Amino acid sequence: MDAPFTFTPTPASIPPPDVVYRLKQPPNTPVNTHPLNPLDFVLRAAQIYPDKVALIHPNVEHPVYYTFAIWAQRIQNLAYALVRAGIKPGDRVAVIAPNSADAHHGVIAARAILTPINTRLKPSEVAYILDHSGANLILVDFEYAHLVPRDVKVPVIISKDTGRSGDPYEAFLAEGRRFSQERSWGGLDAEPNENAGATLCYTSGTTGRPKGVLSTLRGSYLAAIANAFEGQINRDSTYLWILPMFHAAGWTYPWSNTFAFASQITLRTVNYTHIWQHFLNSGVTHYCGAPTVQIGIINDPQARKLPQPIAAIIAGAAPTAYLISELEKLGFKPVHVYGLTETYGPFTRSYDQPNWDNLSLTERARLMARQGQAFATAQEVRVIIPPADDEQNPVLRDVPRDGKTVGEIVTRGNIVMKEYFRDPEATRKAFHGGNFRSGDLAVMHPDGTVAVMDRSKDIIISGGENASSLAIEQELASHPHVLEVSVVARSHPKWGERPMAFVILHPQHATKWADRHHDFIKDMKEHAKARLPGFACPEWVEIVPELPKTSTGKILKTELRRIVAKL
Amino acid sequence: MDAPFTFTPTPASIPPPDVVYRLKQPPNTPVNTHPLNPLDFVLRAAQIYPDKVALIHPNVEHPVYYTFAIWAQRIQNLAYALVRAGIKPGDRVAVIAPNSADAHHGVIAARAILTPINTRLKPSEVAYILDHSGANLILVDFEYAHLVPRDVKVPVIISKDTGRSGDPYEAFLAEGRRFSQERSWGGLDAEPNENAGATLCYTSGTTGRPKGVLSTLRGSYLAAIANAFEGQINRDSTYLWILPMFHAAGWTYPWSNTFAFASQITLRTVNYTHIWQHFLNSGVTHYCGAPTVQIGIINDPQARKLPQPIAAIIAGAAPTAYLISELEKLGFKPVHVYGLTETYGPFTRSYDQPNWDNLSLTERARLMARQGQAFATAQEVRVIIPPADDEQNPVLRDVPRDGKTVGEIVTRGNIVMKEYFRDPEATRKAFHGGNFRSGDLAVMHPDGTVAVMDRSKDIIISGGENASSLAIEQELASHPHVLEVSVVARSHPKWGERPMAFVILHPQHATKWADRHHDFIKDMKEHAKARLPGFACPEWVEIVPELPKTSTGKILKTELRRIVAKL
Repeated sequence: MDAPFTFTPTPASIPPPDVVYRLKQPPNTPVNTHPLNPLDFVLRAAQIYPDKVALIHPNVEHPVYYTFAIWAQRIQNLAYALVRAGIKPGDRVAVIAPNSADAHHGVIAARAILTPINTRLKPSEVAYILDHSGANLILVDFEYAHLVPRDVKVPVIISKDTGRSGDPYEAFLAEGRRFSQERSWGGLDAEPNENAGATLCYTSGTTGRPKGVLSTLRGSYLAAIANAFEGQINRDSTYLWILPMFHAAGWTYPWSNTFAFASQITLRTVNYTHIWQHFLNSGVTHYCGAPTVQIGIINDPQARKLPQPIAAIIAGAAPTAYLISELEKLGFKPVHVYGLTETYGPFTRSYDQPNWDNLSLTERARLMARQGQAFATAQEVRVIIPPADDEQNPVLRDVPRDGKTVGEIVTRGNIVMKEYFRDPEATRKAFHGGNFRSGDLAVMHPDGTVAVMDRSKDIIISGGENASSLAIEQELASHPHVLEVSVVARSHPKWGERPMAFVILHPQHATKWADRHHDFIKDMKEHAKARLPGFACPEWVEIVPELPKTSTGKILKTELRRIVAKL
Repeated sequence: MDAPFTFTPTPASIPPPDVVYRLKQPPNTPVNTHPLNPLDFVLRAAQIYPDKVALIHPNVEHPVYYTFAIWAQRIQNLAYALVRAGIKPGDRVAVIAPNSADAHHGVIAARAILTPINTRLKPSEVAYILDHSGANLILVDFEYAHLVPRDVKVPVIISKDTGRSGDPYEAFLAEGRRFSQERSWGGLDAEPNENAGATLCYTSGTTGRPKGVLSTLRGSYLAAIANAFEGQINRDSTYLWILPMFHAAGWTYPWSNTFAFASQITLRTVNYTHIWQHFLNSGVTHYCGAPTVQIGIINDPQARKLPQPIAAIIAGAAPTAYLISELEKLGFKPVHVYGLTETYGPFTRSYDQPNWDNLSLTERARLMARQGQAFATAQEVRVIIPPADDEQNPVLRDVPRDGKTVGEIVTRGNIVMKEYFRDPEATRKAFHGGNFRSGDLAVMHPDGTVAVMDRSKDIIISGGENASSLAIEQELASHPHVLEVSVVARSHPKWGERPMAFVILHPQHATKWADRHHDFIKDMKEHAKARLPGFACPEWVEIVPELPKTSTGKILKTELRRIVAKL
């Protein structure tokens, strides 16, 4: 990108010449193994490409950017500042901020566990997480300072997000720098255990209390490399942070990008004007986002043909044919991945096949909507018949590969969390059967691809048949006038349950139906009837201006069910 | 590539539908870690891209190619055949063949250790390796059957390299298939220990007995991913096997390619006609080779502008400016990497920098000739002052980063061998100081790049000064009429030693100097004088038609020294 602003690094972030990017090794470090740790990536990037742009944070009052050498120095400062503030190995450092790129590296350099907290949570939820995680220090962005309970007993460092002196966070870093001046990286102890905690991310918790997902350094290292490889991210890449870094630790992308020597652009909010400015002017090549965000992108008035191809990595829900087609028209390359916080983000991907080129968009979209197969460095993915909860050491049986029999997706291996923090009972349940139980219901197709049918609680039991709300949504979304749709069960005197659809009309077509909602609903039902078995056709369709969503963009079906219950 | 031959897989290699690519897990397999094992890659490739071409072996009487599904079935057959033949976990399976792609996967699937033996060795050397490794079974190509001692007491399976029935190797596979028919992958035990042996490769041993370098599954997995990432190999790539697979286990590329879903083309010999056929017609995108081979490629009469860019990964010696320029003119993208058998092949790379575009070819070649910096997934690379051999637990001191002070390259971490097999004393020496001691003398430049000066024994002590034979060669090779050059010490009454250069003239210029060797030598010496300090200028220059080389293309300086001693 053309340098969009001037760059004057603070003295505290200018590294001395001849930095040795090597932490202090514990005694008796073996010659022929080293513990996997994603911190290695930024050290290597600073060593090999010191002057390459690492991090750009442009849409703020005082735009900043950091080269890998400067950024690594800031990361070192942060690690020393944390150690100086009393942080010990295994302690949790909470971050409440729109982005936490420094902390992703600096906290693990201090051998502590990064605990990123969703900025969109309520104060009571933040308080719960701070308490449950036993956070030993809090880094908080000025805009979210009110989320920190007043009676909190641990140090709280506020960032004004300026990168300049006068900012308390910068003062904190400068203290670290004073402390480290003569020791450099060699004054920090390398973590000898690759299974030590790396991040502690709380699930969004649509029901019940959020659970703390503890990841390891080994898992983070391997998942980050997988994301870099699967995304074909390299040193010519520029990654735009649309996905918030507090969401499942940014799916390990903060490290994938440093592994690949890519530049990262951070934003304070999902602002489509800024996003399109960067797509068109900053050489962006990669970003991640849920379909909701992708829809916002294609519908933005600034949307136009991209000057360079951009990989749009989609997760959280399957992309619809409409979304795929609109993204491709603009020059995006959609990639559908699937995962959970418990799996470091993606652990499957819908791998496009050579023969897809010969398919119609609808057929291709149907295949791309599948969750696909195991990601690089992930271990096997299975769809199993869920054993009884009380069965001891059950042997898991796979469903037949018929694309019909519904079972539960399970996986295991390095890309599975260490545990639910301080919740051995939930961990035991999640690991029942020697695999991580995703709780997602799916079928296995003959080609070994997995297709999620639903969360178990979202299945609609209509006339004794199991109807997948996701499958219904997928078909309804193929109606060209539908922007977004969500389907839940509504009780029915005859059938037990029947599907009810909540639809947002596409803005381009909304006026057409403005006074004829009834006609649209009729049209919608015919569309469904042509594509779905009778028991899966929505009995009710409601046009709505908005859908209730979690702070991470997931549709809140619990909320829709509440509405339905009152009808 | 256009299908160059028909494909009729033998019944024994047709996998049944619905193969489950999962080995039998040991009891109490953890949910959230799995042992790193490069076997995973081909299983995943067969699962995701069953019909993609995995392996092509075209330049034989009966050309064969295998899709990932077919190849995986053959690998399974091989594993079962080995188990049936009595191979136990940790046993060594020797392979004496031009390529060993099946064995790279099948042997580790049987939890045995692949021991690839250089086909260019003498029978006595092969006998030594078979004996020292304690090989429990030998797979041998028909052309090299004479290398197997007659009195060998272990099973010997001969391959006629036909892929057809009637070939003893195919009969061996078919036996495995009969044994496995109903068990599939689930009948093979997964290796629970990622630090178990993967390969045992014997060093070329220019002096003394060859040493057996034992690698681990973990190291192989991580090195293979590094090679795939550094080479930007992906599912659109086609790798041509010019580097023999028996050379440091093919630098882990047999697995890098399966990790990346790339196609691999194998050759029986380094035949430039075949190589150029594939460059021009088979969509080749990557290959590895020493400079000697690269020179053969650019000088071949069929050399012409490539239809697609090809990454030429160069190791074994630094590429000269001439080589770089000629490769680039044809459309190759040279990449210089450095490593040893003990480091799974490459552990450093000369990373090109953005500012290189502004440099002259000579300046750029000088930088590219450096060995560079640590490879992806490798741990730190240092240049240290060698401690005394008898020092207990020495603390290693780095040389200053001045580009002048000569020290020894050391490294450590996952990309360092497990040990020298059955040689604890050599292992202890190699690991002295808590790092792997490469034995290569180098300087560290201010930017942290490493540049090899010489093997310690190749340094020329001229008038009390240390002259690097490599540095002298690099300068002499910049003479436009020089094709290859090697420099060794020759004793000198006044200076102790002085450099003597052996030069192969470039064929395009050889006739020019045919009757004027004396003039050329004068010209050469002037060229040297303009570029080197006096003590490093060759006192003698000899024009030769060939240079003595090891079977892997390394120049045999011991041989040159023998010649010099007789002068």
